[in-house]
Amino acid sequence: MGFYAEKEAALESAASIQSRFIHQGKYISVRQDEIDYPDGLHKTWDIVLHPGAVAVIPLTKEGDILMVEQWRRAIGKITLEIPAGGIDPGETPEISAQRELQEETGKKAQKMTYLGPYYSSPGVFTEQVHLFVGRELKHSPLKAEDTEGIDVRVVPLAKAVQFIEDGTICDAKTALGILLVARLL
Amino acid sequence: MGFYAEKEAALESAASIQSRFIHQGKYISVRQDEIDYPDGLHKTWDIVLHPGAVAVIPLTKEGDILMVEQWRRAIGKITLEIPAGGIDPGETPEISAQRELQEETGKKAQKMTYLGPYYSSPGVFTEQVHLFVGRELKHSPLKAEDTEGIDVRVVPLAKAVQFIEDGTICDAKTALGILLVARLL
Repeated sequence: MGFYAEKEAALESAASIQSRFIHQGKYISVRQDEIDYPDGLHKTWDIVLHPGAVAVIPLTKEGDILMVEQWRRAIGKITLEIPAGGIDPGETPEISAQRELQEETGKKAQKMTYLGPYYSSPGVFTEQVHLFVGRELKHSPLKAEDTEGIDVRVVPLAKAVQFIEDGTICDAKTALGILLVARLL
Repeated sequence: MGFYAEKEAALESAASIQSRFIHQGKYISVRQDEIDYPDGLHKTWDIVLHPGAVAVIPLTKEGDILMVEQWRRAIGKITLEIPAGGIDPGETPEISAQRELQEETGKKAQKMTYLGPYYSSPGVFTEQVHLFVGRELKHSPLKAEDTEGIDVRVVPLAKAVQFIEDGTICDAKTALGILLVARLL
């Protein structure tokens, strides 16, 4: 590992850090750290805490991806994304991925392959998204009363890649997941 | 656009929303919205606000990528990332991208191509990362007193792709940017 990065990590571990939660919300919390480094430097650092998330690229045997259209109030847009959501307490990432896939598309994946964890924005945000590709999709709808209406779109993989390049897909985890799957085929 | 997503967007625009800032930090702020929908439903929603960021894939004529190693205190790890940072007030994304590239690698790109904007985590976080590929890199170091020490690594593109697949690269914008560039070549 690099000299400067190691030096910063070492300074950090020798620092005196006072942490306090300045917000605890339903999905995210904010922790403020007051850091006194051994060299006398003082920093205030806000960290947004997230319990972790999953996202699944549901791939049909025809090479299509099941995608969902969602109103995203944080950004004021309807987006085209892969099924995704937060990990509930007690869930493993894989169980969470199957649950989100079923809730959002009415399918389960008989073959679920882990692609890895990625940090959404590691400078300020702890969210880690565990990416999966779900294959051998099986019809497995929830009872109507347990679901919210959701718009599912069947998008050929080549079209999805084009959507990344033309800006139709604007969500980082969706773009990353699709490009990873495009390399597998 | 989809039926349900349109319906949700319409409900939202008919809702009564009370917003208040519950935190205003140096890089991020948190806004809490209390939403009363026309159908009587009430929701509390936290949104983390970010002014926007840039990230550059600096590509040499040999097909190598300049990457930086950084201590990321939010996640407690040293990461391998492409040069990136927040957009300063008054900057365009392209100016910001050239500045970050120069600060972190001592180079400027004579050819800077826009790959597009991506939301880091559109469910709760407004951060949009503007991705660029920087080519025809020219030596352009800042004066030593204006820079912080930073570890630059020269990584062949094929190796960078392998680092995405083996987990060495764990930052979403870095992984996405490299896979987008790999498609261009």
